[in-house]
Amino acid sequence: MTRIESAKQGIITDEIKKVAETEGMDAEKLASHIASGITVITRNINHHIEPLGVGRGLKTKVNANIGTSKDHVSIDEELEKLAALVKYGADAVMDLSTGGPLRELRRSLIGESPISVGTVPIYEAAVKVVEERGSIVRMTADDIFEIIEVQAQEGVDFITVHCGLTMRAIERLKEDRRVLDVVSRGGSFLLEWMIYNDKENPLYENYDRLLDISKKYDMTLSLGDGLRPGCLEDATDRAQIEELLTLGELHKKAVDEGVQAMIEGPGHVPLNQVEINIKLEKELCNGAPFYVLGPLVTDIGMGYDHISAAIGGAIAGAAGADFLCYVTPSEHIRLPDVDDVIEGVVASKLAAHAADIAKGVPSAFEKDKQMARFRKKLDWNGQISLSFNPDRVQEWRAATPPSESDVCSMCADLCAIKAVERALNPKKD
Amino acid sequence: MTRIESAKQGIITDEIKKVAETEGMDAEKLASHIASGITVITRNINHHIEPLGVGRGLKTKVNANIGTSKDHVSIDEELEKLAALVKYGADAVMDLSTGGPLRELRRSLIGESPISVGTVPIYEAAVKVVEERGSIVRMTADDIFEIIEVQAQEGVDFITVHCGLTMRAIERLKEDRRVLDVVSRGGSFLLEWMIYNDKENPLYENYDRLLDISKKYDMTLSLGDGLRPGCLEDATDRAQIEELLTLGELHKKAVDEGVQAMIEGPGHVPLNQVEINIKLEKELCNGAPFYVLGPLVTDIGMGYDHISAAIGGAIAGAAGADFLCYVTPSEHIRLPDVDDVIEGVVASKLAAHAADIAKGVPSAFEKDKQMARFRKKLDWNGQISLSFNPDRVQEWRAATPPSESDVCSMCADLCAIKAVERALNPKKD
Repeated sequence: MTRIESAKQGIITDEIKKVAETEGMDAEKLASHIASGITVITRNINHHIEPLGVGRGLKTKVNANIGTSKDHVSIDEELEKLAALVKYGADAVMDLSTGGPLRELRRSLIGESPISVGTVPIYEAAVKVVEERGSIVRMTADDIFEIIEVQAQEGVDFITVHCGLTMRAIERLKEDRRVLDVVSRGGSFLLEWMIYNDKENPLYENYDRLLDISKKYDMTLSLGDGLRPGCLEDATDRAQIEELLTLGELHKKAVDEGVQAMIEGPGHVPLNQVEINIKLEKELCNGAPFYVLGPLVTDIGMGYDHISAAIGGAIAGAAGADFLCYVTPSEHIRLPDVDDVIEGVVASKLAAHAADIAKGVPSAFEKDKQMARFRKKLDWNGQISLSFNPDRVQEWRAATPPSESDVCSMCADLCAIKAVERALNPKKD
Repeated sequence: MTRIESAKQGIITDEIKKVAETEGMDAEKLASHIASGITVITRNINHHIEPLGVGRGLKTKVNANIGTSKDHVSIDEELEKLAALVKYGADAVMDLSTGGPLRELRRSLIGESPISVGTVPIYEAAVKVVEERGSIVRMTADDIFEIIEVQAQEGVDFITVHCGLTMRAIERLKEDRRVLDVVSRGGSFLLEWMIYNDKENPLYENYDRLLDISKKYDMTLSLGDGLRPGCLEDATDRAQIEELLTLGELHKKAVDEGVQAMIEGPGHVPLNQVEINIKLEKELCNGAPFYVLGPLVTDIGMGYDHISAAIGGAIAGAAGADFLCYVTPSEHIRLPDVDDVIEGVVASKLAAHAADIAKGVPSAFEKDKQMARFRKKLDWNGQISLSFNPDRVQEWRAATPPSESDVCSMCADLCAIKAVERALNPKKD
């Protein structure tokens, strides 16, 4: 039985108990959310990790993308990125590699990762087909499904599949052209294939085959948004919403068949359209877990897109998004390095945390309450221990040290906290 | 005549024309906003700089705080910070120095700065009184007003004065204690003085004297929030709103007397309370320009508080805040260095820009539209030129170069933009 099937029967598995405990949610409630598809637990039956809950009432989760490209391949570096993102608190990692020995790399990551691992199988299919036959347009449905089966068997916990990029969506796109038509890499492969071959998206047409594989390994589908906007001007247009409608239908079908599914979302979205994008997904997709990329609230953030994504992600999370895909400072510039991964993870964790406080996730406020008390007591070790990157804080404090050890070099002797303590809580002589 | 006085008479000065042109606003409309106090132009009659407009319908502005403390004093470094913050686009700078030769430093900054300069005069008063008499509690009203007069005469464009921290507000604070009662440095000085001397706030009691000095130099008052919350738990409480009520009254009085005034706002605020804080200020303070510090949407952001502030600032700006005070990555840790200043300015500029797009400020969208077109054309120089920090983008791109010069090392040969171009706009043979 898959998770959904057993949850539908009201069975409270050890896994559900564990996630419920971690999240501070009643286990029966969590099971009912899994049964109805508004929450997923991402773990392949072949992957021995802590289960990850994503969905209603749970803490907002953070995913970090890593992986090689043809222009930069180092397995050691990818493993270093994995260690870093785990250290800084990412909840999941996606291997987006397209360069070097893909299987070897992925197997290393799955083996080393203590957290959920996601992939985009069409990347491996594209690399293979381009290598063997010169162009993605020569891919067959079997090419992609064989790779999905292999990855599922290896223990991949969730896969991005752009099933909603249908012929109808492409028609809508052609009728109402965008500035940047398609910026999703997987989406662009499928679009090129579909137009060249004049055939429906194989992931849409053979959706049952996808469900069968997912069922076998209890692998979660992440229904990708091949038509996510690539710039603010393209946001929330007919092509995007056409695809979202289809993804909602596919989510329902998955849940009916006992397969867990999330919906992927934008992308580049003006700040004032972020909330409506989240509400719309929840309405059109049966409340399915929403996994957003950013969103980026400006197109000009190169070098600082992790901040742009933190703004969009915090607003999205507060409005109900369940899972944030981080964006690194190197987005739109180059393949990220280890430092970029750290900055991306922390920015996204901070956004998710701010969102959780806003949406009232139990326990989210605790760290902030504790931090304020450490500040009041001028307890620097306490403050440092609660920060996202204690090494950085320690190092910076040491670099410009205060002359009095209980304050900081910003205010020095003119510390507000000390002045107020003298005034409001004067020591008796 | 002050700006407000001449605007009330319907006079369209060259200064108003200039600001109106820069902002893309009708000059008569701008003049009427100045007359009613919902917009200010910050420029002291003794400071020869470009005038800065802050208020309704104008671009959201960014201020950068610099300055020494007793523990770290270098005039050269402060001038370097000034050059950096101007280069990266800050609209104003505040000198918050409390260490070293304060007047010499301030005069250098006023002389060098091409943008508006603000100060918090009570800092200089506190340093002087502590030096001469051992404690801030021995300050007299004349001490503070003499310093305000000196600074106004030197050409300071706007000053923070915590006039709303009244005895009544302290009573409310005592009745409903906070975790971190007062974290505003100026606020803490006044609180200590008021409680020790059992006297009303001299800046409140002698508000007319303040208005007289401001009028003489057409210096803008920035009515400070000495009771801004220092942690999320303390946000939007009775003490904060009591002070805001007073600030609204003082703003009205200033405008009636022909003096420009802004209102300062929080601080540490949960994400879901940011918008209400902005709306409340606009309602309670006659639509006065709102100058917010962050807001920080979590208390645990040490080392990344510029990101926390960017999240809060973007939401605040979109909701109507007019002026964002940046926060650097070093906030809560140490006095910021030059690199911190740059990171703080860019994070805040990005937030202000995202807010301007959201609130429909004319021309805000233009850069993003252009960026998307450069992306479509794979025009890298164009993209780099529109970014917040072109040197960084250039350097990073060079550090992990693509093998094909028109793409980037993220996707390499599997560039989505190229695939889509082949599919949707195939070249004819």
